[in-house]
Amino acid sequence: MPHEMAGVSLRDMANAIRALSMDAVQKANSGHPGMPMGMADVAAVLFSKFLRIDPSQPHWPNRDRFILSNGHGSMLQYSVMHLLGFPEMTIEEIENFRQLGSRTAGHPEYGHAAGIEATTGPLGQGITMSVGMALAERMLNQRFGDDLVDHYTYAFCGDGCLMEGISHEAIDLAGHLKLNKLIFFFDDNHISIDGDTKLSTSIDQRERFEAHGWNTFAVDGHDPEAIEKVILEAQKSDKPAFIACRTIIGYGAPNMQGTDKVHGSALGADEVAATRKNIGWTSKAFVVPEPITKAWHAAATKGREAREAWEKRRDAAPNRAAFEAQYATALPENLAELMAAARADVVTDKPNVATRKASEMALEVINGASEVTIGGSADLTPSNNTRTKGLKDIAPGDYAGRYIRYGIREHGMSAVMNGIALHGGFVPYGGTFMCFTDYARGAIRLSALMGIRVVYVMTHDSIGLGEDGPTHQPIEHLAIHRATPNLLLFRPADAVETNEAWEIAMGETKRPSVMALSRQGVPTLRSGSVSENKTRKGAYVLKDTDGPRDITILSTGTEVSLAVEAAKRLEANGLKVAVVSMPCWELFEEQDAAYRKSVLGTAPRIAIEAAARLGWDRWIGEDGHFIGMTSFGASAPAPEVYKHFGITADAVVEAAGEMLKR
Amino acid sequence: MPHEMAGVSLRDMANAIRALSMDAVQKANSGHPGMPMGMADVAAVLFSKFLRIDPSQPHWPNRDRFILSNGHGSMLQYSVMHLLGFPEMTIEEIENFRQLGSRTAGHPEYGHAAGIEATTGPLGQGITMSVGMALAERMLNQRFGDDLVDHYTYAFCGDGCLMEGISHEAIDLAGHLKLNKLIFFFDDNHISIDGDTKLSTSIDQRERFEAHGWNTFAVDGHDPEAIEKVILEAQKSDKPAFIACRTIIGYGAPNMQGTDKVHGSALGADEVAATRKNIGWTSKAFVVPEPITKAWHAAATKGREAREAWEKRRDAAPNRAAFEAQYATALPENLAELMAAARADVVTDKPNVATRKASEMALEVINGASEVTIGGSADLTPSNNTRTKGLKDIAPGDYAGRYIRYGIREHGMSAVMNGIALHGGFVPYGGTFMCFTDYARGAIRLSALMGIRVVYVMTHDSIGLGEDGPTHQPIEHLAIHRATPNLLLFRPADAVETNEAWEIAMGETKRPSVMALSRQGVPTLRSGSVSENKTRKGAYVLKDTDGPRDITILSTGTEVSLAVEAAKRLEANGLKVAVVSMPCWELFEEQDAAYRKSVLGTAPRIAIEAAARLGWDRWIGEDGHFIGMTSFGASAPAPEVYKHFGITADAVVEAAGEMLKR
Repeated sequence: MPHEMAGVSLRDMANAIRALSMDAVQKANSGHPGMPMGMADVAAVLFSKFLRIDPSQPHWPNRDRFILSNGHGSMLQYSVMHLLGFPEMTIEEIENFRQLGSRTAGHPEYGHAAGIEATTGPLGQGITMSVGMALAERMLNQRFGDDLVDHYTYAFCGDGCLMEGISHEAIDLAGHLKLNKLIFFFDDNHISIDGDTKLSTSIDQRERFEAHGWNTFAVDGHDPEAIEKVILEAQKSDKPAFIACRTIIGYGAPNMQGTDKVHGSALGADEVAATRKNIGWTSKAFVVPEPITKAWHAAATKGREAREAWEKRRDAAPNRAAFEAQYATALPENLAELMAAARADVVTDKPNVATRKASEMALEVINGASEVTIGGSADLTPSNNTRTKGLKDIAPGDYAGRYIRYGIREHGMSAVMNGIALHGGFVPYGGTFMCFTDYARGAIRLSALMGIRVVYVMTHDSIGLGEDGPTHQPIEHLAIHRATPNLLLFRPADAVETNEAWEIAMGETKRPSVMALSRQGVPTLRSGSVSENKTRKGAYVLKDTDGPRDITILSTGTEVSLAVEAAKRLEANGLKVAVVSMPCWELFEEQDAAYRKSVLGTAPRIAIEAAARLGWDRWIGEDGHFIGMTSFGASAPAPEVYKHFGITADAVVEAAGEMLKR
Repeated sequence: MPHEMAGVSLRDMANAIRALSMDAVQKANSGHPGMPMGMADVAAVLFSKFLRIDPSQPHWPNRDRFILSNGHGSMLQYSVMHLLGFPEMTIEEIENFRQLGSRTAGHPEYGHAAGIEATTGPLGQGITMSVGMALAERMLNQRFGDDLVDHYTYAFCGDGCLMEGISHEAIDLAGHLKLNKLIFFFDDNHISIDGDTKLSTSIDQRERFEAHGWNTFAVDGHDPEAIEKVILEAQKSDKPAFIACRTIIGYGAPNMQGTDKVHGSALGADEVAATRKNIGWTSKAFVVPEPITKAWHAAATKGREAREAWEKRRDAAPNRAAFEAQYATALPENLAELMAAARADVVTDKPNVATRKASEMALEVINGASEVTIGGSADLTPSNNTRTKGLKDIAPGDYAGRYIRYGIREHGMSAVMNGIALHGGFVPYGGTFMCFTDYARGAIRLSALMGIRVVYVMTHDSIGLGEDGPTHQPIEHLAIHRATPNLLLFRPADAVETNEAWEIAMGETKRPSVMALSRQGVPTLRSGSVSENKTRKGAYVLKDTDGPRDITILSTGTEVSLAVEAAKRLEANGLKVAVVSMPCWELFEEQDAAYRKSVLGTAPRIAIEAAARLGWDRWIGEDGHFIGMTSFGASAPAPEVYKHFGITADAVVEAAGEMLKR
């Protein structure tokens, strides 16, 4: 194979990436030129010789996936997309790098332009999402065959990605599952922000990856011939493949390359000019010579041809309809009906169950009705109740199952779920303890930022966890989720609300949901008709009064039953008490003011929730009373812990008495 | 060396751990017997033959440190402490395992009993704290010599600890720094909660650790002779040492050992009886035969002797006073004076600087005045401004410096800081971007739960970060810290408040502090006398009115200057407007109601903060107005981002107009 394309050398094609990157960073006077310039040769080979993507059909299902995990090098991705001819990635967008409203944000943002497969920047997230994508590919492949699904997933990463802990979780899982169509390119440039990587690491990355079950390769990252050869080898690997590309950061900048100076700021006009001279780039800023543009467009043709060939296979495939429904994650039309029927059963049976068990009941309905859900847990399957009847495990080399044993890897699980959701074909949900939100936060935030459907099953959601004690008892975690934009936190009060929360989460295609579920049993509180999904309004009057209220008690989750008990006792004393269940604040916030007012009422308000107060003042008002946690928890049986911290019906009754005295 | 102690076999000594553990879990009907029973033989050898701890002086500075990173096996630690004779760990405490108010919580809780060196349970935290302890030991050793500081740090860990991402950060840093007095014992039992570890991993742990620069060993975890031999070898290692102990989980329980059934619940009365028979344990529950108790007490004598020998060396040491001051992290008596003098300089110079720069100015004073601070950054030194003049790097084999290059390891950095603080001798602070709170949360929570002095330097604290965009712009992170119990979040408005925040943080020995610091410059807002540290009250009236207020504007950090500007414009329109700066909500909450009321006032309130609203309703009241973020941020120069999201003085002026119209 000649190391050129349409008569243009791969080096010149790479120099187009270098020039666009340094020019865009220079104009913005902000950004990271070092990585795009250092990895330009690898990118030129990969995108011109291998990557099957089609700028004219950027969402084609069987395209190769490319993830820039070292997302600060975003100009590499934008440059390549522009050069290949992605219609949204115009030269104006390149010129508007890092400006308000441009598609070319500081780090690649999913949704800003077709062709950006994931939001990256927080280090290590991209490679872990790529594991999810590679797994989704294998899962679809086993279901629908090579003709319909058979593509590679490529990820670029740097020292940062590989130092972050999440990288360990990602590569351990990928190696275990033998995801042999996954290829990492490590920008092995020996430089981080603080200086030489020798300042902080002495690792042997190849030995590390081999210990995790990968095949590894090393290559001179500025030798196109060698790069091509090593990619061909990596593609044949029976395990995921790791290619250490020895590069010089900022390659081409004669006075700054190879140093941390070139990592994160503009080169400056002088060095930009010197680089032009050094790499023989004579055209002006943002101008790519015609032959080089043509060569890049020629490179894009193999993607178009691959897409066209795939479309022919798809048209001939007997399982086309099934594939398309799966890929689109179409939910069964009668799901709402099935869920409502299950709610009706609950109202009849009135089970006293933990909401984690109620979640399993809801999942039985969903997983039974649809093939798109993929469950899993970070090694807490028996506690999270995430594995419904008949779900088989995904195993190394066998991807037919619908249940992922994520291991003790909450962060990895969450980012892998992001990757699965981004790939298409599945709706992932995964479980851990609510407290371990802490470990998964980096990826949960990206679910919300990207606006994708991932469901977090967070059981043991309060001090009700009991004996495991303070390290395992969430206090601040509900607030953490509530403070996060574009994320729904559900804390259902009983099996009916849990079912409703799941119904909503399944339909929310543009935001993730977090289920806060109890370890301990709760009574069924809802009665009467359950055809309407009341959780959809976020909060509603669970128990109303005859006539004007004396007191309104607000609550969520396991404390709603305490509120109901307190209300009964207060009513026995002749007071009129309403109980409001607030399973999802975010949905309640979206209701109109009149509805919100009607629910909250004008009577004095007491809130009870076994968690931190932060946020409750919005609902209780300045004269309201909050019963909850002001410290970390304690290790003891749950009922004793509740009593110890004064989160009881007694406390509500007492507070009501105090308030009405005023 | 005979494999016995005072005529009792090590196996019988180990069986005492097994019996106490299974009995305590059985009585509580809650807990994890599998790990203590599996690791009992290793523990018996380690504690009887090696560990230099003295139950009568549990805080002796040069004791070996032992960390149970797989903290769910807490009964192992409690059993050993009881058997060695730690006075607080009575048999009653063992019998009250996991009960309210006992010292024997579900997971080891720092502070519950002397001898528990760290709170563990969230997996991977313990081993990472042990890296911090081993580093603190080397740092003190280099400063004060072998006579005063020269001890080992031992950590037990399981598959969970080693699957968690933080383990990668921990072992990469420890290997790099050549912490050769650190020894890990891996409970290699092949079992996790979901079942066989083959379900989720295929890693070669020894190869992994070797790639990270460790020496590794393997041993039969039920062969005392082999265990003793391997520990002797590990002690001689020139690198940190990893010992894979092949064990059988729940060893001794004839029908359940080696399975996941024995991991996390009581064995049941029948299996407890069968185990007694199987291991030849004839005494009743919670009764340890006299000869075995004697053997364990005999084991404790070597620790007492070591402590006594050390005390003699200490008494003779010319540098005793310096060592004791350092170990106690004594701050210079004139620090408050020096800080106030630096504030006076600020008021004179009126610099327009970013608060991250102001933080560096404060640190120059602190680091210049004291030797106890140890700085660092997760590879953002030039951005976090954490390395003051003259701080030298800690390097492999050279621990004389005071600055740690943590690498791109926010979680690892935070847990290592916890370990350093727990060890004694240093006050650690470390920097990253505020957004990467997400990566560090697991360890930050433990700083707060343990109640230790660690300072988090979180720069780039809002959309004011600008071009890097949404992935790097904190929105929910202030709320995350504010919701966390026992943690102080400071968001200073100018260089004076930044100095005050640092002064407070240095004095807070029982809780961690988080500094929210700006990338962008802010004017100096404080004037007049700065001898009083106004930040100490959490919030105060920065700009007062003559007579009754028409409006009160509340704010923090970089938005306080917007509040001041808005106030000026409103006053030009004839209104009386107070501005309240609220750098630390937690401290404000601790003031008496009268002070809080006097600060907040009774006039309509507007709050402005470039962050999520959650929590602000507590201060603005039900009719208040909040100006802040309702979504993720955007990539653009900071002033444009502020304008785009309407976080401006204009917005305050407009809101005031609307409120006064009502």
